[in-house]
Amino acid sequence: MSQTTQTTLDVTAYCDGLADRALAASRSLNRLDGRARNAMLQAIADGLDAASAELIAANAKDLAAAEANGLTPAMIDRLRLDDKGVAKIANAVRQVAAQTDPVGQVLEGYVRPNGLRIERRRVPIGVVLIIYESRPNVTADAAALCLKSGNATVLRGGKESLHSNTAIASVIRRAIESVGADPNIVQLVETTDRAAVGALLKQVGKIDLAIPRGGESLIRAVVEQAHIPVIKHYTGNCHVYVDAGAAQLPAGMVREVCVNAKTQRTGVCNAAETMLFHVDAAPLLVEACRALAAEGVELRCCERSAELLATHVGDGQRKAATEDDWHAEYLDMICAIKVVDSLDDAVAHINRYGSQHTDAILSADVLAVDRFVNEVDTADVMVNCSTRFSDGGEYGLGAEIGISTDKLHARGPMGAADLTTYKWVVRGDGQCR
Amino acid sequence: MSQTTQTTLDVTAYCDGLADRALAASRSLNRLDGRARNAMLQAIADGLDAASAELIAANAKDLAAAEANGLTPAMIDRLRLDDKGVAKIANAVRQVAAQTDPVGQVLEGYVRPNGLRIERRRVPIGVVLIIYESRPNVTADAAALCLKSGNATVLRGGKESLHSNTAIASVIRRAIESVGADPNIVQLVETTDRAAVGALLKQVGKIDLAIPRGGESLIRAVVEQAHIPVIKHYTGNCHVYVDAGAAQLPAGMVREVCVNAKTQRTGVCNAAETMLFHVDAAPLLVEACRALAAEGVELRCCERSAELLATHVGDGQRKAATEDDWHAEYLDMICAIKVVDSLDDAVAHINRYGSQHTDAILSADVLAVDRFVNEVDTADVMVNCSTRFSDGGEYGLGAEIGISTDKLHARGPMGAADLTTYKWVVRGDGQCR
Repeated sequence: MSQTTQTTLDVTAYCDGLADRALAASRSLNRLDGRARNAMLQAIADGLDAASAELIAANAKDLAAAEANGLTPAMIDRLRLDDKGVAKIANAVRQVAAQTDPVGQVLEGYVRPNGLRIERRRVPIGVVLIIYESRPNVTADAAALCLKSGNATVLRGGKESLHSNTAIASVIRRAIESVGADPNIVQLVETTDRAAVGALLKQVGKIDLAIPRGGESLIRAVVEQAHIPVIKHYTGNCHVYVDAGAAQLPAGMVREVCVNAKTQRTGVCNAAETMLFHVDAAPLLVEACRALAAEGVELRCCERSAELLATHVGDGQRKAATEDDWHAEYLDMICAIKVVDSLDDAVAHINRYGSQHTDAILSADVLAVDRFVNEVDTADVMVNCSTRFSDGGEYGLGAEIGISTDKLHARGPMGAADLTTYKWVVRGDGQCR
Repeated sequence: MSQTTQTTLDVTAYCDGLADRALAASRSLNRLDGRARNAMLQAIADGLDAASAELIAANAKDLAAAEANGLTPAMIDRLRLDDKGVAKIANAVRQVAAQTDPVGQVLEGYVRPNGLRIERRRVPIGVVLIIYESRPNVTADAAALCLKSGNATVLRGGKESLHSNTAIASVIRRAIESVGADPNIVQLVETTDRAAVGALLKQVGKIDLAIPRGGESLIRAVVEQAHIPVIKHYTGNCHVYVDAGAAQLPAGMVREVCVNAKTQRTGVCNAAETMLFHVDAAPLLVEACRALAAEGVELRCCERSAELLATHVGDGQRKAATEDDWHAEYLDMICAIKVVDSLDDAVAHINRYGSQHTDAILSADVLAVDRFVNEVDTADVMVNCSTRFSDGGEYGLGAEIGISTDKLHARGPMGAADLTTYKWVVRGDGQCR
């Protein structure tokens, strides 16, 4: 089922129409409760399973185009949908349905001296625009999280996955309609015209929030064009700081956490990129860096760390760090290593070069830990554990819509509850001021 | 004490310097706890009291200029500071000091199956820019609320109150310094050059949030120029909907609440501007509108309400409503009156014309109330009480920094806690993924 039958599109008019329909659909959601939203999610999951062949056929068109256009094997791999992939997407929707309903949750409630009963209650934001690159699963994941939290969604996927996205969105819309709800609760932008993004980002009063999911250049382009609020998920230049007080931690803990933070998965935003060692933790620096090198990590060392490692790590795996290394999000088997003279210096380094994503301290010194937790300006502070835990699933939020590196509204991993706002409800029996 | 000794200003360089100092001051606040912030607030209050004569003298210069420039009596009145006014400002700062510290509050905390202890903790936003019109008390109020919540502040007041603001800011900075803290925790923009606002609104990474306080044109200008997040406080086109179920409310309640919502104070954003009456509540429409007219309110009536009121309200106080009346924020003794056929029509009217500020329902029908609460897209829903209660003080938030008509981050009255964000703190004993 296509949303429109237009063949030549006036992009502005098309986007105005999308936004109008989304606003009306969002209002219709406010008349339904969580049972109705879960029925839609269940129907979507069942619909995806039943349409597996249809989805794989649509995906095949994207794969053929991707190969013809010379996309990298990694990109093609992310694009590919098979039976298992479809089942996984459907099950993710079922898991979202099973989550606690965030809508209607009372965040606080109290009675004023004049008898007014005041309640702050979670409500949907309204209409959420998701702009994403070419992973077809995002189409279903984002729609499901938005629907769970009572929002209408406008989805704008990458052009490389347009056939897959269109097929998935069509299944979702049929499923929503099958339970008697407005299919415009989920709409996919069906034109690949770039002007559509700009037009959607200007729908003040109709679209309430944009969430770009993708690389830094995509996010910057969205921010520049937007007249509506944007929640950003920039880079993860994550740090591990090994404090003087780490010497009192159980043997091996620093080495294990450092190796895990760097190597367990390198291409993700919560992998560590720089490790800072207090000058009094030199033996731990040597132990951790030997282990990193043994795993195949290339070390970009400050002068002092290079000296400490001279006899422990071969020249091939040890380079002199430059200013660029402190800024780098390698997403690779490379790690910057620096000796610092104090906790203050570690905090200053992280606040200067970090991306306010995730930063860890390893220490047995409770006062040092408290200071680090307070003074590092970051979304996620890890104490004596790997940076890799900074993740919606690991935090128990269920599926995540992204990891916000912003400070306003939501910070760090964002689940369904972060797609809500609140309203104040004040009940009285005739009070006047 | 002046912040700078420059006489000719390079605005961009000046604003860069302000933002750099504010960022450094905000970092210094993260090393202090609530005791230190309260000591600053106490010193500020005492300093304001002690400097009363100095402040009144500075204010006299603004008043003289205002008279010379032909400002309206109302504007001059808002600008004026006397002994009582200074004492009131100082006491407001003491009240902020006495509030519960929002910083460090644990919003949620739980333990994951792998033993990680996860905590979501309130932390200051960082640096907050307040842009306001010519009320000198805002200089102290805004600085105090930001300081209470651990933020550094950059204050940009109206040019009409520059002498008053400069004197107040100077007292504040001396007080902060007197307790050994960084005076740049509070900075006033000392140039009236309009380019400074634009330059400050582009300090991404240094200034975290802008809050404009003033008329709609000020707010729109800020939004247009800003590259940093803005929390907006637009107009209050507030509604009272008298439901069919209002007939079962105690006698007189509807009349009293309607009169209070419209007339208790007309020039404020939470005063009612339009009243909607269910067609079955015609007797209440007549009773309420007679009372409004008796108070001197001019009624702008739809056709049906005009007919109902023909024999009750004189022609002089009854005009035909036009489309403009449904949009109007009168801030005056004028009220739009409309008959609606259903709760659905009332909700649709409010969602179309309202400003998402404050909207009330008067009804004894619990199902109608629930539907109204869910379906009206507004920050504050009042049930059987006056719209005038939509206020930080009335909600028990203490002083308020504004009333947000945005949906993201903060909605409705904003107190000190709304000037915080949160960070995730994850504590483990060596967990790896």
